[in-house]
Amino acid sequence: MKKDLTILITNDDGYRAKGFQAMIELASHFGKVIGVAPKQAQSGKSQALTICDKVYVKKQIDQDEITIYSLDGTPVDCIKFAMDHLLENQKIDLVLSGINHGSNAGVNVVYSGTMGAALEASLYGIPSIGLSLLNIDDNADFQTVVRYSKMLIEKILLTDNLEGVCFNINFPDIKFEQIKGVRVSQQTKSMWKESFTPLSEQDGEICYMVQCTFQNMEPDQSKSDEWALNNGYVSIVPIQMDKTSYKDLQKVCSIFESETTINV
Amino acid sequence: MKKDLTILITNDDGYRAKGFQAMIELASHFGKVIGVAPKQAQSGKSQALTICDKVYVKKQIDQDEITIYSLDGTPVDCIKFAMDHLLENQKIDLVLSGINHGSNAGVNVVYSGTMGAALEASLYGIPSIGLSLLNIDDNADFQTVVRYSKMLIEKILLTDNLEGVCFNINFPDIKFEQIKGVRVSQQTKSMWKESFTPLSEQDGEICYMVQCTFQNMEPDQSKSDEWALNNGYVSIVPIQMDKTSYKDLQKVCSIFESETTINV
Repeated sequence: MKKDLTILITNDDGYRAKGFQAMIELASHFGKVIGVAPKQAQSGKSQALTICDKVYVKKQIDQDEITIYSLDGTPVDCIKFAMDHLLENQKIDLVLSGINHGSNAGVNVVYSGTMGAALEASLYGIPSIGLSLLNIDDNADFQTVVRYSKMLIEKILLTDNLEGVCFNINFPDIKFEQIKGVRVSQQTKSMWKESFTPLSEQDGEICYMVQCTFQNMEPDQSKSDEWALNNGYVSIVPIQMDKTSYKDLQKVCSIFESETTINV
Repeated sequence: MKKDLTILITNDDGYRAKGFQAMIELASHFGKVIGVAPKQAQSGKSQALTICDKVYVKKQIDQDEITIYSLDGTPVDCIKFAMDHLLENQKIDLVLSGINHGSNAGVNVVYSGTMGAALEASLYGIPSIGLSLLNIDDNADFQTVVRYSKMLIEKILLTDNLEGVCFNINFPDIKFEQIKGVRVSQQTKSMWKESFTPLSEQDGEICYMVQCTFQNMEPDQSKSDEWALNNGYVSIVPIQMDKTSYKDLQKVCSIFESETTINV
């Protein structure tokens, strides 16, 4: 594998996160690393972006082959700043986002800032990969993810025509030797059920603590990313920006038939 | 049309927004209205949600058929609070989100808090509709949207098997008589190009002002929501939570063939 690539990295746990340090190590394996990551943790920020407002950027690491900036904004802002400003005329070979502290499988992918950034990068026609470990601990051990991801990324870099393809890759929190392989999967149909516990009240405004429980509602388990992860596989799901529900198009056309110029 | 329905409403511009007042008027046409909307503007918040943290809720309107709460959190939080706590054992017939000040066509749908809330509601198996007007002005006139939406919502309410279908409906900013009809469309392939203008610097941290320009990259214009809106139609796009890129599954399977248990 050539080591003359330029890799853009980001995450949603912030530039100080242990998972981001692991990402710097991983990306350095493939070439020059440029990172723009949130100043503060931005978990759950989905594809949020800053519109007509200010962002604050500071260079945090300035070495020969590794340059890292912090940005006071969302993960998508980090990609926009990198692609539209910092690296505007530079060729980027690959975008890596993570390594995330916690799962981005199932419905988590829609709330994830890490995957929001990876998707945003794919709009620029670059292959992008989000990497996540099923361990939310600040001190999680990312060495298995780093070691295994090197193999996966080499395969991706050797493949043509992946412009704009975005990979959502999740790792079970098990030892390298225990991983059974990878499984290309689909996003598990799932949701978070939340509970709201009232804590206090002031001037009629009630403060609630929010807690969440994951619900798996997938009718076809064996194809799903949750199944892969629960059975010792690394799950890989290609994801996309297009939210159009093509399966519903005909049904929706028929509702409005009388006044629709249908062309789908 | 029966008027004994229960309608849950929210938005991303905040409960004080003019578009939300128009939504209360629209929803009241169909029955009892319960609203949970952000305390502050939450535009661009996408599907961000609050995890294991606090939210603050206050009743703002308490009338016979209209109850409105403000919630200090994201649009998705508003739906979670309404569905998992406030209305846990109540039947909700329809969820309406908006009326948004500004377009949620094209790539805007992925950043939109209004559409994030509508999508979240669809997870609960309820038909949900996001309504947006192509006018970002605080004082935009929503009367055409209200009048036209009544007809569209009546059609949707008369249709069976729409559990979990989410409609992204955008209105051009033109007079009622000028609307040519509705056009069921697909999300326009598009992106925002951002510019970052440095304003000031402190301790090595640079403050940039962010500005955005919309780029339409759709190869098949006539099927797209942007085309519909630019040509005097109301655009309707069914959207979904599943981000899996099914068109890329086979390609991705082939990359990892040697170590994949493929089952897609």
